[in-house]
Amino acid sequence: MYTSENTIRVRYAETDRMGYVYYGNYAAYFETGRVEALRALGLSYREMEDKGIMLPVLSYQIKYFKPAFFDDTLIIKTTLKELPTGTRLSFHYEIWNDKGIQINEGQTTHVFVKVDGGRPITVPQEVIDKLAPFFKN
Amino acid sequence: MYTSENTIRVRYAETDRMGYVYYGNYAAYFETGRVEALRALGLSYREMEDKGIMLPVLSYQIKYFKPAFFDDTLIIKTTLKELPTGTRLSFHYEIWNDKGIQINEGQTTHVFVKVDGGRPITVPQEVIDKLAPFFKN
Amino acid sequence: MYTSENTIRVRYAETDRMGYVYYGNYAAYFETGRVEALRALGLSYREMEDKGIMLPVLSYQIKYFKPAFFDDTLIIKTTLKELPTGTRLSFHYEIWNDKGIQINEGQTTHVFVKVDGGRPITVPQEVIDKLAPFFKN
Amino acid sequence: MYTSENTIRVRYAETDRMGYVYYGNYAAYFETGRVEALRALGLSYREMEDKGIMLPVLSYQIKYFKPAFFDDTLIIKTTLKELPTGTRLSFHYEIWNDKGIQINEGQTTHVFVKVDGGRPITVPQEVIDKLAPFFKN
Repeated sequence: MYTSENTIRVRYAETDRMGYVYYGNYAAYFETGRVEALRALGLSYREMEDKGIMLPVLSYQIKYFKPAFFDDTLIIKTTLKELPTGTRLSFHYEIWNDKGIQINEGQTTHVFVKVDGGRPITVPQEVIDKLAPFFKN
Repeated sequence: MYTSENTIRVRYAETDRMGYVYYGNYAAYFETGRVEALRALGLSYREMEDKGIMLPVLSYQIKYFKPAFFDDTLIIKTTLKELPTGTRLSFHYEIWNDKGIQINEGQTTHVFVKVDGGRPITVPQEVIDKLAPFFKN
Repeated sequence: MYTSENTIRVRYAETDRMGYVYYGNYAAYFETGRVEALRALGLSYREMEDKGIMLPVLSYQIKYFKPAFFDDTLIIKTTLKELPTGTRLSFHYEIWNDKGIQINEGQTTHVFVKVDGGRPITVPQEVIDKLAPFFKN
Repeated sequence: MYTSENTIRVRYAETDRMGYVYYGNYAAYFETGRVEALRALGLSYREMEDKGIMLPVLSYQIKYFKPAFFDDTLIIKTTLKELPTGTRLSFHYEIWNDKGIQINEGQTTHVFVKVDGGRPITVPQEVIDKLAPFFKN
């Protein structure tokens, strides 16, 4: 298992009329979670795209437990539960506020594809090499 | 079963670096689907909130089939598969482009709560009354 | 002078904690104004980009008069006050709600550039041809 | 003069089809600039709103010099050029990338209003007290 944490501060722009973070905005927060999870491994998602591999989302689920509010500091815990094989990669996420209250949990599944042509490809060896040490028993 | 359709035009603002609609933006498209589904029944979500009842999201799932692009006209099909009972309401969504290609499918589950205090309440009678004719056999 | 109108419905996603449309979201509303202004002339901004010409923004100003709210129907009036010459194009915008109250006014100035290389180019002849009839005296 | 700096990392969500940060998204970046500028003074914008004073935007201008890209680290420099008097407050902003290239410059003007009723009020004494030391000659 590989876990990484990053924090974000809720922007006014991201709140809605209820005073809550709009339910659709957590997708962007989770994006920061997976980008930072990769960066902490020494992998740059931007460089991966520049090299011609992208990682579009196939599915996304989220359960909302508690609202988050303007100016809250949120901790995003991003986890890879399994070493990816084949063409897919799944991230699990939990968001917690700084009072120790869990805001939500979610999951995204992605597929590695070539920017040119959009064909699925197997997980790049570089990704496997960086992740493998976390999945030894 | 109750189904409603509305259309939206993809904004440049909603695309991302891949040229696709960003995966997080479909949540706002689905929001238009449920607001218009209620309006077509004669129910105003704004008025409901002004009367003190809101409908926050408990869970959200989406499967992405094909990308949508800038300036695409998208058809959002919003369905209530069951007459709500208790405190919850689920919407199913499908988004199709104007070439007849399905872009995604999703689901949100909501809970009726009082704006004052945030306590769950049972589905308002007005909602039941408007929906019931669609669920007679 | 050339003027075009389009309407949008305010989404919950676009409101903020004050219950107002977030001040940053009018930029996307104005975008719909200029895209529809071009479409009404028979010009597709998407096709223009697909042919290799894009229109990034050089400057943007907005004055806010009154707030807009969730579910408001807003009318966006987009105006070209002068026939463009050289490499630039300016749009003026006014947003009004359906009670006849003006919400804001704004302006964007754009430059025509080649997608390849990013060099400024003069206004495409097709744009001049479509606009010229509105600027005859 | 009072100046503060904060940094943000560009999210994929914030890019558009050109690969640039969408022109409308800088409004939210500037929002982080003014919230952090106030925080660095010991002022919490959230607390100010909770006490019944809000600071809606009256006008906003921005000039775009260079695009910003996904995953760029951006430095936001937020400046108050004058000690506020009356009911208004203006912030100036510059955004620079981490290669020392200036991305844009902007300005917002706000008015202090009571949440209850929306009447303009003079700049709270607490704000003056925190800012005054930066404006002595």
